[in-house]
Amino acid sequence: MSNYTPLSELGEFGLIKLIKDKIEVKHQESTIKGIGDDAAIIEPQEKQLVVSSDMLLEGVHFDLTFCPLKHLGYKAVAVNVSDIAAMYAKPTQITVNIALGARYTVEAVEELYEGINLACENYKVDLVGGDTTSSRAGLVISVTAIGEVAKGEAVQRSGAQVNDLICVTGDLGAAYLGLQILEREKQAFMANPEMQPELEDKQYIVGRQLRPEARMDVVHEMKDKGIRPTSMIDVSDGLASELFHICSQSGVGATIYRENLPVDEQTLEAAMEFNLDPITCILNGGEDYELLFTVPLADYDKIKNHPDFTIIGKITEASEGINLANKHGQAFPLQAQGWKHF
Amino acid sequence: MSNYTPLSELGEFGLIKLIKDKIEVKHQESTIKGIGDDAAIIEPQEKQLVVSSDMLLEGVHFDLTFCPLKHLGYKAVAVNVSDIAAMYAKPTQITVNIALGARYTVEAVEELYEGINLACENYKVDLVGGDTTSSRAGLVISVTAIGEVAKGEAVQRSGAQVNDLICVTGDLGAAYLGLQILEREKQAFMANPEMQPELEDKQYIVGRQLRPEARMDVVHEMKDKGIRPTSMIDVSDGLASELFHICSQSGVGATIYRENLPVDEQTLEAAMEFNLDPITCILNGGEDYELLFTVPLADYDKIKNHPDFTIIGKITEASEGINLANKHGQAFPLQAQGWKHF
Repeated sequence: MSNYTPLSELGEFGLIKLIKDKIEVKHQESTIKGIGDDAAIIEPQEKQLVVSSDMLLEGVHFDLTFCPLKHLGYKAVAVNVSDIAAMYAKPTQITVNIALGARYTVEAVEELYEGINLACENYKVDLVGGDTTSSRAGLVISVTAIGEVAKGEAVQRSGAQVNDLICVTGDLGAAYLGLQILEREKQAFMANPEMQPELEDKQYIVGRQLRPEARMDVVHEMKDKGIRPTSMIDVSDGLASELFHICSQSGVGATIYRENLPVDEQTLEAAMEFNLDPITCILNGGEDYELLFTVPLADYDKIKNHPDFTIIGKITEASEGINLANKHGQAFPLQAQGWKHF
Repeated sequence: MSNYTPLSELGEFGLIKLIKDKIEVKHQESTIKGIGDDAAIIEPQEKQLVVSSDMLLEGVHFDLTFCPLKHLGYKAVAVNVSDIAAMYAKPTQITVNIALGARYTVEAVEELYEGINLACENYKVDLVGGDTTSSRAGLVISVTAIGEVAKGEAVQRSGAQVNDLICVTGDLGAAYLGLQILEREKQAFMANPEMQPELEDKQYIVGRQLRPEARMDVVHEMKDKGIRPTSMIDVSDGLASELFHICSQSGVGATIYRENLPVDEQTLEAAMEFNLDPITCILNGGEDYELLFTVPLADYDKIKNHPDFTIIGKITEASEGINLANKHGQAFPLQAQGWKHF
C-alpha cells in the first residue's frame, strides 16, 4: 500500500548517487570538483576563505514532529551560511554529513535534500561533499560552510571601538517564541490528535523558528553602501550572549537601550500569552540568525533610516561593563544566558 | 571520591574555552584566524584547496567499551586526513564538531581532544573551528579536513589509463580482523569480567583498527620521488569497493592478482582463528586507510622495490571487467561489497 522505499533497498552507494543526482548545479566558479572523489577541489584565487561548521541533532536542536524535513534541510544550511555572513564574506561551498536511522525512507531523504538544495540555490553555494551514514539514534546533520572574502576584509568579533554604534538587523525573539508555540501545539496534539493546530496569527514567528534565513541580503547591501562593520556576529545564542562575545573579544563595554530593541508584534503577543518577559525573550531567545554589528559613529547617516537596521546602543569603555538602559536612563548590568546544552 | 567533573559544571562556553586552550598551536601559515569567531580565516595563496568531511557515530563506527577516547580522537582526524592524502594534497586545517551525552565528564572530553591534538601535531594541521553540543544518544564526531595542492596537481579517481600498474601501500585486512578480535574479547569480558583480554600476539592488527594512520608519509615520498599517480583513493570501505570506484570513474577495467595482495602474518593467523577467508578480509575488510593508486608502466622502476608499495595488478579495457586472477592465470569477476550501513 505504501509508496515509500526503505533506505536498505537503495544501499549506501545508491543513496550517494541519489544525492549526487539531485545536486548537480554549480553556482561558484571556484568549485573545480564537487561530490564524487575523496575530496572536493576548490580554487579560491586571490581570496581569503572563511570556514565554519555546525551540527544539528534530532531531539536536541530539532523535533521532527513539527519540523518538516525540507525546512530542516534548509535551516541546516542557513545557520552555517549565517556564520559566513557574520564574517562579511560570501558563502561558496558546503559539505553536508548526515546520519539517518534505519526507519528513514528514500522519500524522507529526498525531502531533506530538497530543503538543502533550495538553500544552496538561494545562497548560491555548491554542495561539494559529505558523508552519509546510519544512526542508531536520531537524525544528525553536520554542515561545514566555506566562504570567500577579499584579503583582510573579513569582519571579526574583535574590532569594536569605544563610541561605535551597536546595530542589529531585523527583529529579535521571534524564533524563540515560535518554538514555544510549536511545543504547545505539539502537547495539545498529543493530548487530542483530532485537534488542529492554532497557528494562523503566528505564522511569522513560527516561520522564524522553522525556516530561518541567513542575512546575506544585508551583507551584500552593506558592501554596496560601503558599510564595513568594525565587528560582527550572528545572533544564534541570543543578543546578550553575542554582545558579550563582541565586548570580551574587543576589550570594550556596551550599553544597549531597552526601548530600541526591535521586536515584531507577534513576538510581543506570544510573550504575553506565555506570560514571558518580552525583553528576556529578545535578549536570550536565540536562533534569530540576525546580525549584530558595530560601526563607527561616522556611519550614522548610512544606517539611521535603513529599514533593516536598528541602532540599539553604543560601545563604551570596558570599565563601564555591559548594560541595559531603560528610557529613564537607568542602566543595569546585562546577564548572558545563551543556550545551556549540558 | 571521584575526581571527575561533570560537563554541566563547565557549561558550553567553558567547554569551548577548554578546547581552545588545548589547541593553540599553529602549524600552517595559511591559517590566519582559528577558533574564536563565527568562522576561521584561511589564506591559501596560489594553491587549490581540497575539502573532505566524515562523521563517526558511537554504536555505528566505534564502540567505547574497547576504543579509548584518545584513540578515537586520533582516528577521527586520521580518516579525514586520509581523504586529503588520497587527493595527493597536504592537509592544513580541520574543523571538529562533537556531540556529547550528559554523562560525559570534562576529563573524557580532554582525553578525546588529546587524541585530536596528537593527530593535529603528527599531520601538521590546525584545528580552526567546530561546534560542541549535547547528544541524547551517543558520541558523534564530525570532522571536515582542508588541504592544499598545487594548481592542477590533485589526483582524482578518474585518471587511470589502460596498462597502468595498480598499486597499494602497506598491507590490507588487518583493521577488519583487529575489530573481530576486539569484538570477541568484549563478548568474553561481558561473560566473565575477571577475564583478561588476550591481545598479546594481536597488537598489530588491533592497533590497525584502533589507531589507523593516514599515509601522508607515502604522499610526501611520492612527491620526493616524482611519482604522481594517475588515480588514487584511500581504502576505507575495502580494496574491492575502492577499485570499483577507480574503474567506474576512469572508464576502465582491472585485473588484480591474488598472490600479490599484501597481508600481514597476524592478519592471516587471525583469519584462520575466525575461520574467515583471508582474501575476503583483504578485499572487503575496509578501514585500512592505505592508498590504492595507479601509475603508468614507465614508473615501474620507481615503485618495484619500494617497501611501502605493492604492485597488485594492472588496468585493462573496461570491456574486460574487474577481475581477481589466481596463480594459474584464472580470472574471476570481483564483487564489491563495501560497508552496508543501512
